[in-house]
Amino acid sequence: MEDLTINPQILAAPGQPLNTERFNTEWVSLVDNKEMASKALEKNIESLIAIQDKLYADNRYAVLIIFQAMDAAGKDGTIKHVMSGLNPQGTQVYSFKAPTEHELDHDYLWRTYCCLPQRGNVGIFNRSYYEEVLVTRVHPQFILRQRIPGINGLNDITDDFWKMRFRQINDMEKHLSENGTIIIKFFLNISKDQQKRRFLRRLEDPSRNWKFQSADIDEREHWTEYMNAYSDMLTHTSTPWAPWYVIPADRKWFMRYAVSNVLVNKLSKLDLHYPELPDKEKQLLSVYKQRLAAE
Amino acid sequence: MEDLTINPQILAAPGQPLNTERFNTEWVSLVDNKEMASKALEKNIESLIAIQDKLYADNRYAVLIIFQAMDAAGKDGTIKHVMSGLNPQGTQVYSFKAPTEHELDHDYLWRTYCCLPQRGNVGIFNRSYYEEVLVTRVHPQFILRQRIPGINGLNDITDDFWKMRFRQINDMEKHLSENGTIIIKFFLNISKDQQKRRFLRRLEDPSRNWKFQSADIDEREHWTEYMNAYSDMLTHTSTPWAPWYVIPADRKWFMRYAVSNVLVNKLSKLDLHYPELPDKEKQLLSVYKQRLAAE
Repeated sequence: MEDLTINPQILAAPGQPLNTERFNTEWVSLVDNKEMASKALEKNIESLIAIQDKLYADNRYAVLIIFQAMDAAGKDGTIKHVMSGLNPQGTQVYSFKAPTEHELDHDYLWRTYCCLPQRGNVGIFNRSYYEEVLVTRVHPQFILRQRIPGINGLNDITDDFWKMRFRQINDMEKHLSENGTIIIKFFLNISKDQQKRRFLRRLEDPSRNWKFQSADIDEREHWTEYMNAYSDMLTHTSTPWAPWYVIPADRKWFMRYAVSNVLVNKLSKLDLHYPELPDKEKQLLSVYKQRLAAE
Repeated sequence: MEDLTINPQILAAPGQPLNTERFNTEWVSLVDNKEMASKALEKNIESLIAIQDKLYADNRYAVLIIFQAMDAAGKDGTIKHVMSGLNPQGTQVYSFKAPTEHELDHDYLWRTYCCLPQRGNVGIFNRSYYEEVLVTRVHPQFILRQRIPGINGLNDITDDFWKMRFRQINDMEKHLSENGTIIIKFFLNISKDQQKRRFLRRLEDPSRNWKFQSADIDEREHWTEYMNAYSDMLTHTSTPWAPWYVIPADRKWFMRYAVSNVLVNKLSKLDLHYPELPDKEKQLLSVYKQRLAAE
Protein backbone atom coordinates (compact mmCIF):
# COMPACT_ATOMS: atom_id res chain seq x y z
CA MET A 1 0.00 0.00 0.00
CA GLU A 2 1.26 3.48 -0.83
CA ASP A 3 1.98 5.82 2.09
CA LEU A 4 0.38 9.22 1.54
CA THR A 5 1.75 10.55 4.84
CA ILE A 6 5.09 11.04 3.10
CA ASN A 7 3.70 12.19 -0.24
CA PRO A 8 5.05 15.74 -0.67
CA GLN A 9 1.74 16.68 -2.33
CA ILE A 10 -0.14 15.70 0.84
CA LEU A 11 2.19 16.31 3.78
CA ALA A 12 2.52 19.98 4.66
CA ALA A 13 6.22 19.72 5.42
CA PRO A 14 6.96 21.37 8.79
CA GLY A 15 9.33 24.31 8.99
CA GLN A 16 8.87 25.91 5.61
CA PRO A 17 6.62 28.53 4.01
CA LEU A 18 3.58 26.83 2.53
CA ASN A 19 0.92 28.05 0.17
CA THR A 20 -2.39 26.37 -0.56
CA GLU A 21 -1.79 27.10 -4.24
CA ARG A 22 1.02 24.60 -4.41
CA PHE A 23 -1.34 21.74 -3.46
CA ASN A 24 -3.44 19.84 -5.98
CA THR A 25 -7.21 19.74 -5.48
CA GLU A 26 -7.90 16.71 -7.73
CA TRP A 27 -5.81 13.66 -6.90
CA VAL A 28 -2.13 12.96 -6.39
CA SER A 29 -1.44 9.25 -6.54
CA LEU A 30 -1.66 6.11 -8.62
CA VAL A 31 -5.10 5.60 -7.19
CA ASP A 32 -6.66 7.68 -9.92
CA ASN A 33 -10.16 6.35 -10.39
CA LYS A 34 -13.30 5.83 -8.35
CA GLU A 35 -13.31 2.04 -8.42
CA MET A 36 -9.73 1.63 -7.28
CA ALA A 37 -10.19 4.23 -4.55
CA SER A 38 -13.39 2.68 -3.31
CA LYS A 39 -11.80 -0.77 -2.98
CA ALA A 40 -8.80 0.67 -1.17
CA LEU A 41 -11.07 2.65 1.14
CA GLU A 42 -12.96 -0.50 2.07
CA LYS A 43 -9.72 -2.27 2.97
CA ASN A 44 -8.50 0.71 4.97
CA ILE A 45 -11.71 0.87 6.96
CA GLU A 46 -11.20 -2.78 7.91
CA SER A 47 -7.69 -1.97 9.06
CA LEU A 48 -8.93 1.02 11.04
CA ILE A 49 -11.50 -1.11 12.83
CA ALA A 50 -8.80 -3.58 13.85
CA ILE A 51 -6.48 -0.78 14.96
CA GLN A 52 -9.19 0.92 17.00
CA ASP A 53 -9.96 -2.31 18.81
CA LYS A 54 -6.32 -2.61 19.85
CA LEU A 55 -6.05 1.11 20.64
CA TYR A 56 -8.94 0.77 23.06
CA ALA A 57 -7.57 -2.33 24.75
CA ASP A 58 -4.03 -0.94 24.90
CA ASN A 59 -5.35 2.23 26.58
CA ARG A 60 -2.20 4.35 26.28
CA TYR A 61 -2.71 6.55 23.22
CA ALA A 62 -5.53 8.92 22.44
CA VAL A 63 -6.11 9.85 18.80
CA LEU A 64 -7.26 13.34 17.88
CA ILE A 65 -8.35 13.80 14.26
CA ILE A 66 -9.01 17.36 13.13
CA PHE A 67 -10.88 18.37 9.97
CA GLN A 68 -10.70 21.88 8.59
CA ALA A 69 -11.98 23.01 5.22
CA MET A 70 -13.93 25.56 3.27
CA ASP A 71 -17.68 24.99 3.10
CA ALA A 72 -18.86 22.09 0.92
CA ALA A 73 -15.41 20.51 0.88
CA GLY A 74 -16.92 17.40 2.43
CA LYS A 75 -15.99 17.26 6.11
CA ASP A 76 -19.28 15.67 7.19
CA GLY A 77 -19.28 13.19 4.31
CA THR A 78 -15.69 12.18 4.96
CA ILE A 79 -16.35 11.59 8.64
CA LYS A 80 -19.41 9.55 7.71
CA HIS A 81 -17.76 7.43 5.04
CA VAL A 82 -14.36 6.85 6.61
CA MET A 83 -15.29 6.57 10.27
CA SER A 84 -18.67 4.85 10.24
CA GLY A 85 -17.24 1.38 10.84
CA LEU A 86 -15.58 2.40 14.09
CA ASN A 87 -16.97 1.32 17.42
CA PRO A 88 -18.94 4.27 18.84
CA GLN A 89 -17.74 3.19 22.29
CA GLY A 90 -14.34 4.74 21.91
CA THR A 91 -15.17 7.28 19.20
CA GLN A 92 -16.51 10.79 19.73
CA VAL A 93 -17.21 13.43 17.12
CA TYR A 94 -17.41 17.08 18.19
CA SER A 95 -18.62 19.74 15.78
CA PHE A 96 -17.61 23.22 16.80
CA LYS A 97 -19.95 25.98 15.69
CA ALA A 98 -19.69 29.67 16.52
CA PRO A 99 -18.74 29.91 20.21
CA THR A 100 -21.47 30.58 22.78
CA GLU A 101 -21.33 33.49 25.22
CA HIS A 102 -20.16 31.08 27.90
CA GLU A 103 -17.37 29.74 25.70
CA LEU A 104 -16.29 33.26 24.75
CA ASP A 105 -15.79 33.89 28.47
CA HIS A 106 -12.89 31.43 28.44
CA ASP A 107 -9.62 31.40 26.57
CA TYR A 108 -10.14 30.27 22.99
CA LEU A 109 -8.66 26.78 23.54
CA TRP A 110 -10.87 25.95 26.52
CA ARG A 111 -13.99 24.60 24.84
CA THR A 112 -12.01 22.22 22.66
CA TYR A 113 -9.62 21.21 25.47
CA CYS A 114 -12.52 19.90 27.51
CA CYS A 115 -13.57 17.71 24.55
CA LEU A 116 -10.17 16.09 24.02
CA PRO A 117 -10.29 12.29 23.65
CA GLN A 118 -9.21 10.12 26.54
CA ARG A 119 -6.64 7.35 26.27
CA GLY A 120 -7.76 4.48 24.08
CA ASN A 121 -10.28 6.70 22.29
CA VAL A 122 -10.56 8.42 18.93
CA GLY A 123 -11.78 12.02 19.07
CA ILE A 124 -12.83 13.69 15.84
CA PHE A 125 -13.05 17.48 15.68
CA ASN A 126 -15.30 18.72 12.85
CA ARG A 127 -13.74 22.18 12.83
CA SER A 128 -11.61 23.02 15.85
CA TYR A 129 -9.52 25.67 17.59
CA TYR A 130 -8.05 26.31 14.16
CA GLU A 131 -11.15 28.39 13.42
CA GLU A 132 -9.47 30.81 15.79
CA VAL A 133 -6.82 31.55 13.16
CA LEU A 134 -9.13 31.14 10.13
CA VAL A 135 -12.62 32.62 10.37
CA THR A 136 -11.37 35.12 12.98
CA ARG A 137 -8.50 36.05 10.69
CA VAL A 138 -10.87 36.86 7.85
CA HIS A 139 -13.30 38.56 10.26
CA PRO A 140 -11.05 40.00 12.98
CA GLN A 141 -14.01 41.78 14.55
CA PHE A 142 -14.92 38.34 16.00
CA ILE A 143 -11.76 38.57 18.11
CA LEU A 144 -13.11 41.67 19.85
CA ARG A 145 -15.98 39.59 21.24
CA GLN A 146 -13.38 37.59 23.18
CA ARG A 147 -12.60 40.66 25.31
CA ILE A 148 -8.89 39.90 25.53
CA PRO A 149 -7.11 42.54 27.64
CA GLY A 150 -4.95 44.76 25.43
CA ILE A 151 -7.03 43.98 22.34
CA ASN A 152 -9.32 46.96 22.30
CA GLY A 153 -9.72 47.54 18.58
CA LEU A 154 -8.91 46.07 15.19
CA ASN A 155 -5.58 47.91 15.19
CA ASP A 156 -4.42 45.78 18.10
CA ILE A 157 -4.84 42.59 16.06
CA THR A 158 -1.43 42.64 14.43
CA ASP A 159 0.70 40.01 12.72
CA ASP A 160 2.27 39.37 16.11
CA PHE A 161 -1.14 38.53 17.52
CA TRP A 162 -1.55 35.69 15.01
CA LYS A 163 2.04 34.52 15.54
CA MET A 164 1.26 34.36 19.25
CA ARG A 165 -1.82 32.20 18.56
CA PHE A 166 0.20 29.86 16.35
CA ARG A 167 2.76 29.48 19.15
CA GLN A 168 0.04 28.85 21.75
CA ILE A 169 -1.53 26.17 19.56
CA ASN A 170 1.82 24.52 18.86
CA ASP A 171 2.71 24.52 22.56
CA MET A 172 -0.58 22.87 23.46
CA GLU A 173 -0.31 20.26 20.72
CA LYS A 174 3.28 19.50 21.77
CA HIS A 175 2.12 18.94 25.35
CA LEU A 176 -0.69 16.66 24.18
CA SER A 177 1.60 14.70 21.92
CA GLU A 178 4.19 14.27 24.68
CA ASN A 179 1.45 12.90 26.92
CA GLY A 180 0.15 10.29 24.53
CA THR A 181 -2.24 11.99 22.10
CA ILE A 182 -1.64 11.30 18.42
CA ILE A 183 -2.76 14.39 16.50
CA ILE A 184 -3.73 14.01 12.84
CA LYS A 185 -4.84 17.17 11.05
CA PHE A 186 -6.60 17.23 7.69
CA PHE A 187 -7.16 20.25 5.53
CA LEU A 188 -9.67 19.21 2.87
CA ASN A 189 -8.55 21.33 -0.05
CA ILE A 190 -11.36 22.14 -2.47
CA SER A 191 -11.04 24.47 -5.46
CA LYS A 192 -13.16 27.57 -5.81
CA ASP A 193 -14.76 26.17 -8.98
CA GLN A 194 -15.69 22.91 -7.33
CA GLN A 195 -17.24 24.74 -4.38
CA LYS A 196 -19.37 26.68 -6.86
CA ARG A 197 -20.57 23.45 -8.47
CA ARG A 198 -21.48 21.96 -5.08
CA PHE A 199 -23.34 25.10 -3.98
CA LEU A 200 -25.28 25.07 -7.25
CA ARG A 201 -26.22 21.45 -6.67
CA ARG A 202 -27.49 22.37 -3.20
CA LEU A 203 -29.66 25.07 -4.75
CA GLU A 204 -30.97 22.94 -7.60
CA ASP A 205 -31.55 19.61 -5.84
CA PRO A 206 -34.51 19.90 -3.40
CA SER A 207 -33.12 17.07 -1.26
CA ARG A 208 -29.95 19.11 -0.76
CA ASN A 209 -31.60 22.48 -0.21
CA TRP A 210 -31.36 22.17 3.57
CA LYS A 211 -27.58 22.27 3.35
CA PHE A 212 -27.62 25.68 1.71
CA GLN A 213 -26.94 28.78 3.77
CA SER A 214 -26.80 32.23 2.28
CA ALA A 215 -23.87 33.00 4.61
CA ASP A 216 -21.83 30.43 2.69
CA ILE A 217 -22.09 32.54 -0.44
CA ASP A 218 -21.00 35.60 1.55
CA GLU A 219 -17.96 33.75 2.87
CA ARG A 220 -17.07 32.68 -0.65
CA GLU A 221 -16.40 36.31 -1.49
CA HIS A 222 -13.53 36.16 1.00
CA TRP A 223 -11.96 33.18 -0.81
CA THR A 224 -8.52 34.77 -1.26
CA GLU A 225 -8.38 35.93 2.33
CA TYR A 226 -9.30 32.44 3.49
CA MET A 227 -6.62 30.87 1.33
CA ASN A 228 -4.07 33.28 2.79
CA ALA A 229 -5.22 32.35 6.30
CA TYR A 230 -4.97 28.62 5.48
CA SER A 231 -1.52 29.12 3.95
CA ASP A 232 -0.31 30.88 7.08
CA MET A 233 -1.89 28.23 9.29
CA LEU A 234 -0.12 25.46 7.36
CA THR A 235 3.18 27.35 7.48
CA HIS A 236 3.11 27.97 11.21
CA THR A 237 1.28 25.00 12.70
CA SER A 238 2.49 22.06 10.66
CA THR A 239 4.94 20.63 13.18
CA PRO A 240 6.86 17.38 13.55
CA TRP A 241 4.52 16.40 16.39
CA ALA A 242 1.31 17.43 14.62
CA PRO A 243 1.72 17.86 10.85
CA TRP A 244 -1.04 18.93 8.50
CA TYR A 245 -2.14 16.70 5.65
CA VAL A 246 -3.58 18.58 2.70
CA ILE A 247 -6.16 16.37 1.03
CA PRO A 248 -7.32 17.11 -2.52
CA ALA A 249 -11.07 17.49 -2.08
CA ASP A 250 -12.49 18.05 -5.56
CA ARG A 251 -13.03 14.31 -6.03
CA LYS A 252 -14.85 12.83 -3.07
CA TRP A 253 -13.66 9.31 -3.93
CA PHE A 254 -10.05 10.42 -3.74
CA MET A 255 -10.52 12.52 -0.60
CA ARG A 256 -12.07 9.67 1.35
CA TYR A 257 -9.47 7.19 0.19
CA ALA A 258 -6.64 9.60 1.03
CA VAL A 259 -7.92 10.33 4.53
CA SER A 260 -8.22 6.62 5.23
CA ASN A 261 -4.75 6.00 3.82
CA VAL A 262 -3.17 8.64 6.09
CA LEU A 263 -5.01 7.28 9.13
CA VAL A 264 -4.00 3.68 8.52
CA ASN A 265 -0.39 4.60 7.83
CA LYS A 266 -0.12 6.82 10.90
CA LEU A 267 -1.89 4.52 13.32
CA SER A 268 -0.41 1.23 12.21
CA LYS A 269 2.99 2.59 13.30
CA LEU A 270 1.89 2.73 16.95
CA ASP A 271 3.12 -0.02 19.26
CA LEU A 272 -0.33 -1.25 20.26
CA HIS A 273 -0.79 -4.45 22.21
CA TYR A 274 -3.68 -6.29 23.77
CA PRO A 275 -2.87 -6.29 27.47
CA GLU A 276 -1.40 -9.55 28.72
CA LEU A 277 -2.64 -11.10 31.90
CA PRO A 278 0.00 -11.32 34.63
CA ASP A 279 1.48 -14.85 34.84
CA LYS A 280 -0.20 -15.41 38.18
CA GLU A 281 -3.62 -14.70 36.68
CA LYS A 282 -2.89 -16.80 33.63
CA GLN A 283 -2.16 -19.81 35.79
CA LEU A 284 -5.53 -19.35 37.43
CA LEU A 285 -7.44 -19.46 34.14
CA SER A 286 -7.64 -23.26 34.20
CA VAL A 287 -8.88 -23.13 37.79
CA TYR A 288 -11.70 -20.82 36.76
CA LYS A 289 -12.48 -23.03 33.78
CA GLN A 290 -12.85 -26.03 36.09
CA ARG A 291 -15.05 -24.06 38.48
CA LEU A 292 -17.39 -23.08 35.67
CA ALA A 293 -17.47 -26.58 34.22
CA ALA A 294 -18.25 -28.08 37.63
CA GLU A 295 -21.31 -25.88 38.15
CA MET B 1 0.42 49.82 52.52
CA GLU B 2 3.51 47.70 52.05
CA ASP B 3 3.73 45.66 48.83
CA LEU B 4 4.69 42.06 49.58
CA THR B 5 4.65 41.14 45.87
CA ILE B 6 8.08 42.74 45.58
CA ASN B 7 9.43 41.59 48.95
CA PRO B 8 12.41 39.36 48.07
CA GLN B 9 11.47 37.12 50.99
CA ILE B 10 8.06 36.46 49.43
CA LEU B 11 8.48 36.72 45.66
CA ALA B 12 10.17 33.66 44.17
CA ALA B 13 12.20 35.69 41.69
CA PRO B 14 11.86 34.16 38.21
CA GLY B 15 14.92 32.90 36.38
CA GLN B 16 17.16 31.83 39.23
CA PRO B 17 17.77 28.71 41.32
CA LEU B 18 15.53 28.78 44.37
CA ASN B 19 15.54 26.75 47.53
CA THR B 20 12.75 26.56 50.08
CA GLU B 21 15.42 26.84 52.79
CA ARG B 22 16.14 30.42 51.88
CA PHE B 23 12.55 31.43 52.73
CA ASN B 24 11.39 32.32 56.22
CA THR B 25 8.49 30.36 57.72
CA GLU B 26 7.58 32.90 60.45
CA TRP B 27 7.03 36.43 59.17
CA VAL B 28 8.94 38.84 56.97
CA SER B 29 7.54 42.33 57.33
CA LEU B 30 6.82 45.20 59.69
CA VAL B 31 3.47 43.61 60.30
CA ASP B 32 4.88 41.47 63.09
CA ASN B 33 2.00 40.83 65.47
CA LYS B 34 -1.45 39.32 65.41
CA GLU B 35 -3.40 42.49 66.06
CA MET B 36 -1.73 44.53 63.36
CA ALA B 37 -2.08 41.69 60.88
CA SER B 38 -5.71 41.14 61.68
CA LYS B 39 -6.58 44.81 61.13
CA ALA B 40 -4.67 44.89 57.86
CA LEU B 41 -6.38 41.68 56.74
CA GLU B 42 -9.78 43.20 57.39
CA LYS B 43 -8.94 46.23 55.26
CA ASN B 44 -7.57 44.06 52.48
CA ILE B 45 -10.71 41.95 52.40
CA GLU B 46 -12.74 45.12 51.92
CA SER B 47 -10.49 46.09 49.02
CA LEU B 48 -10.79 42.63 47.51
CA ILE B 49 -14.57 42.79 47.63
CA ALA B 50 -14.50 46.11 45.79
CA ILE B 51 -12.03 44.79 43.23
CA GLN B 52 -14.05 41.64 42.62
CA ASP B 53 -17.17 43.66 41.97
CA LYS B 54 -15.36 45.64 39.29
CA LEU B 55 -13.64 42.55 37.90
CA TYR B 56 -17.02 40.93 37.37
CA ALA B 57 -18.55 43.99 35.72
CA ASP B 58 -15.47 44.64 33.59
CA ASN B 59 -15.59 41.03 32.35
CA ARG B 60 -12.17 40.95 30.68
CA TYR B 61 -9.83 39.32 33.18
CA ALA B 62 -10.13 35.97 34.90
CA VAL B 63 -8.19 35.46 38.13
CA LEU B 64 -6.70 32.08 38.95
CA ILE B 65 -5.38 31.68 42.49
CA ILE B 66 -3.40 28.53 43.25
CA PHE B 67 -2.57 27.21 46.71
CA GLN B 68 0.08 24.56 47.23
CA ALA B 69 1.51 23.48 50.56
CA MET B 70 2.48 20.62 52.80
CA ASP B 71 -0.32 19.17 54.94
CA ALA B 72 -1.53 21.33 57.84
CA ALA B 73 0.04 24.47 56.37
CA GLY B 74 -3.39 26.04 56.30
CA LYS B 75 -4.71 26.07 52.74
CA ASP B 76 -8.33 25.54 53.75
CA GLY B 77 -8.18 28.08 56.56
CA THR B 78 -6.56 30.69 54.36
CA ILE B 79 -9.19 30.26 51.66
CA LYS B 80 -11.88 30.52 54.31
CA HIS B 81 -10.49 33.60 56.07
CA VAL B 82 -9.24 35.60 53.10
CA MET B 83 -11.88 34.77 50.52
CA SER B 84 -15.09 34.47 52.52
CA GLY B 85 -16.20 38.03 51.84
CA LEU B 86 -16.20 37.54 48.08
CA ASN B 87 -19.41 37.20 46.14
CA PRO B 88 -19.94 33.48 45.48
CA GLN B 89 -21.43 34.46 42.12
CA GLY B 90 -18.10 34.99 40.48
CA THR B 91 -15.98 32.85 42.79
CA GLN B 92 -15.35 29.12 42.47
CA VAL B 93 -13.12 26.94 44.62
CA TYR B 94 -11.91 23.61 43.25
CA SER B 95 -10.13 21.12 45.49
CA PHE B 96 -8.15 18.56 43.58
CA LYS B 97 -7.75 15.21 45.27
CA ALA B 98 -6.08 12.12 43.85
CA PRO B 99 -7.18 11.82 40.21
CA THR B 100 -9.99 9.44 39.31
CA GLU B 101 -9.64 6.69 36.73
CA HIS B 102 -11.44 8.90 34.23
CA GLU B 103 -9.10 11.83 34.90
CA LEU B 104 -6.05 9.58 34.59
CA ASP B 105 -7.27 8.72 31.10
CA HIS B 106 -6.54 12.30 30.03
CA ASP B 107 -3.35 14.33 29.97
CA TYR B 108 -2.50 15.57 33.44
CA LEU B 109 -3.56 19.18 32.77
CA TRP B 110 -7.01 18.26 31.49
CA ARG B 111 -9.00 18.04 34.71
CA THR B 112 -7.77 21.40 35.91
CA TYR B 113 -8.09 23.04 32.49
CA CYS B 114 -11.81 22.32 32.43
CA CYS B 115 -12.15 24.09 35.81
CA LEU B 116 -10.39 27.29 34.79
CA PRO B 117 -12.26 30.47 35.77
CA GLN B 118 -14.12 32.40 33.10
CA ARG B 119 -13.65 36.11 32.47
CA GLY B 120 -14.79 38.29 35.33
CA ASN B 121 -14.47 35.39 37.78
CA VAL B 122 -12.07 34.33 40.50
CA GLY B 123 -11.10 30.66 40.45
CA ILE B 124 -9.32 29.20 43.45
CA PHE B 125 -7.42 25.93 43.12
CA ASN B 126 -6.89 24.17 46.45
CA ARG B 127 -3.99 22.06 45.14
CA SER B 128 -3.64 22.00 41.36
CA TYR B 129 -1.71 20.58 38.42
CA TYR B 130 1.39 21.36 40.48
CA GLU B 131 0.72 18.12 42.37
CA GLU B 132 1.91 16.57 39.12
CA VAL B 133 5.46 17.75 39.89
CA LEU B 134 5.20 17.37 43.69
CA VAL B 135 3.44 14.27 45.01
CA THR B 136 4.26 12.41 41.79
CA ARG B 137 7.88 13.47 42.13
CA VAL B 138 8.12 12.01 45.62
CA HIS B 139 6.12 8.94 44.54
CA PRO B 140 7.05 8.47 40.86
CA GLN B 141 5.12 5.20 40.75
CA PHE B 142 1.98 7.39 40.53
CA ILE B 143 3.20 8.50 37.10
CA LEU B 144 3.01 4.93 35.82
CA ARG B 145 -0.76 4.97 36.43
CA GLN B 146 -0.99 7.69 33.78
CA ARG B 147 0.07 5.18 31.11
CA ILE B 148 2.11 7.71 29.15
CA PRO B 149 3.63 6.11 26.03
CA GLY B 150 7.38 5.71 26.49
CA ILE B 151 7.11 5.78 30.28
CA ASN B 152 7.12 2.06 31.01
CA GLY B 153 9.03 1.96 34.27
CA LEU B 154 10.55 4.14 36.96
CA ASN B 155 13.79 4.33 35.00
CA ASP B 156 12.00 6.28 32.26
CA ILE B 157 11.10 9.05 34.70
CA THR B 158 14.29 11.05 34.36
CA ASP B 159 15.25 14.63 35.13
CA ASP B 160 14.29 15.46 31.56
CA PHE B 161 10.80 14.17 32.24
CA TRP B 162 10.31 16.73 35.02
CA LYS B 163 11.91 19.49 32.93
CA MET B 164 9.39 18.65 30.20
CA ARG B 165 6.52 18.96 32.67
CA PHE B 166 7.80 22.33 33.89
CA ARG B 167 7.93 23.53 30.28
CA GLN B 168 4.43 22.23 29.56
CA ILE B 169 3.05 24.02 32.62
CA ASN B 170 4.87 27.26 31.78
CA ASP B 171 3.59 27.14 28.19
CA MET B 172 0.02 26.69 29.35
CA GLU B 173 0.24 29.45 31.94
CA LYS B 174 1.76 31.78 29.35
CA HIS B 175 -1.13 31.08 27.00
CA LEU B 176 -3.65 31.72 29.76
CA SER B 177 -1.95 34.91 30.83
CA GLU B 178 -1.79 36.19 27.23
CA ASN B 179 -5.52 35.55 26.94
CA GLY B 180 -6.56 37.45 30.04
CA THR B 181 -6.09 35.16 33.03
CA ILE B 182 -4.17 36.63 35.96
CA ILE B 183 -2.37 33.75 37.68
CA ILE B 184 -1.37 34.14 41.32
CA LYS B 185 0.41 31.18 42.91
CA PHE B 186 0.93 30.74 46.64
CA PHE B 187 3.24 28.25 48.28
CA LEU B 188 2.30 28.25 51.98
CA ASN B 189 5.64 27.49 53.55
CA ILE B 190 5.37 25.72 56.91
CA SER B 191 8.32 24.40 58.91
CA LYS B 192 8.63 20.76 59.81
CA ASP B 193 8.43 21.59 63.54
CA GLN B 194 5.25 23.59 63.11
CA GLN B 195 3.65 20.79 61.11
CA LYS B 196 4.44 18.44 63.99
CA ARG B 197 2.75 20.78 66.47
CA ARG B 198 -0.37 21.01 64.30
CA PHE B 199 -0.56 17.24 63.80
CA LEU B 200 -0.26 16.76 67.56
CA ARG B 201 -3.09 19.23 68.11
CA ARG B 202 -5.24 17.25 65.69
CA LEU B 203 -4.54 14.09 67.65
CA GLU B 204 -5.13 15.65 71.06
CA ASP B 205 -8.13 17.88 70.41
CA PRO B 206 -11.26 15.72 69.80
CA SER B 207 -12.87 18.48 67.73
CA ARG B 208 -9.86 18.33 65.38
CA ASN B 209 -9.54 14.54 65.21
CA TRP B 210 -11.45 14.35 61.95
CA LYS B 211 -8.71 16.28 60.20
CA PHE B 212 -6.12 13.65 61.07
CA GLN B 213 -5.07 11.08 58.49
CA SER B 214 -2.41 8.49 59.14
CA ALA B 215 -1.20 8.98 55.57
CA ASP B 216 -0.15 12.50 56.55
CA ILE B 217 2.37 11.08 59.00
CA ASP B 218 3.70 8.78 56.29
CA GLU B 219 4.16 11.71 53.91
CA ARG B 220 6.00 13.62 56.63
CA GLU B 221 8.78 11.06 56.42
CA HIS B 222 9.41 12.28 52.88
CA TRP B 223 9.85 15.89 54.08
CA THR B 224 13.27 16.43 52.49
CA GLU B 225 12.15 14.95 49.17
CA TYR B 226 9.11 17.22 49.20
CA MET B 227 11.25 20.27 49.93
CA ASN B 228 13.51 19.34 47.02
CA ALA B 229 10.47 18.98 44.78
CA TYR B 230 9.11 22.37 45.93
CA SER B 231 12.51 23.99 45.39
CA ASP B 232 12.67 22.64 41.85
CA MET B 233 9.10 23.70 41.19
CA LEU B 234 9.85 27.27 42.37
CA THR B 235 13.03 27.38 40.31
CA HIS B 236 11.42 26.22 37.07
CA THR B 237 7.86 27.55 37.20
CA SER B 238 8.19 30.96 38.78
CA THR B 239 7.86 33.04 35.61
CA PRO B 240 7.31 36.71 34.84
CA TRP B 241 3.75 35.88 33.76
CA ALA B 242 2.96 33.61 36.74
CA PRO B 243 5.38 34.06 39.65
CA TRP B 244 5.23 32.08 42.88
CA TYR B 245 4.76 33.82 46.20
CA VAL B 246 6.26 31.96 49.15
CA ILE B 247 4.17 32.74 52.20
CA PRO B 248 5.55 32.07 55.69
CA ALA B 249 2.96 29.71 57.17
CA ASP B 250 4.03 29.05 60.74
CA ARG B 251 1.95 31.98 62.00
CA LYS B 252 -1.57 31.83 60.63
CA TRP B 253 -2.14 35.54 61.30
CA PHE B 254 0.83 36.45 59.15
CA MET B 255 0.01 33.94 56.41
CA ARG B 256 -3.53 35.23 55.96
CA TYR B 257 -2.45 38.85 56.02
CA ALA B 258 0.34 38.17 53.51
CA VAL B 259 -1.95 36.35 51.08
CA SER B 260 -4.45 39.20 51.21
CA ASN B 261 -1.67 41.74 50.75
CA VAL B 262 -0.36 40.00 47.62
CA LEU B 263 -3.87 39.70 46.18
CA VAL B 264 -4.73 43.35 46.74
CA ASN B 265 -1.43 44.56 45.36
CA LYS B 266 -1.64 42.36 42.28
CA LEU B 267 -5.29 42.98 41.47
CA SER B 268 -5.41 46.70 42.17
CA LYS B 269 -2.93 47.16 39.32
CA LEU B 270 -5.46 45.91 36.77
CA ASP B 271 -7.21 48.48 34.60
CA LEU B 272 -10.72 47.55 35.69
CA HIS B 273 -13.70 49.69 34.75
CA TYR B 274 -17.43 49.49 35.19
CA PRO B 275 -18.73 49.30 31.62
CA GLU B 276 -20.06 52.58 30.28
CA LEU B 277 -23.29 52.66 28.37
CA PRO B 278 -22.92 53.77 24.77
CA ASP B 279 -23.90 57.46 24.35
CA LYS B 280 -26.98 56.46 22.41
CA GLU B 281 -28.22 54.29 25.29
CA LYS B 282 -27.34 56.96 27.83
CA GLN B 283 -29.52 59.47 26.04
CA LEU B 284 -32.37 57.01 26.25
CA LEU B 285 -32.14 56.66 30.02
CA SER B 286 -34.35 59.67 30.59
CA VAL B 287 -36.89 58.29 28.13
CA TYR B 288 -37.07 55.04 30.09
CA LYS B 289 -37.33 57.00 33.33
CA GLN B 290 -40.34 58.87 31.95
CA ARG B 291 -41.96 55.67 30.73
CA LEU B 292 -41.66 54.08 34.16
CA ALA B 293 -42.90 57.20 35.93
CA ALA B 294 -45.91 57.41 33.61
CA GLU B 295 -47.05 53.86 34.39
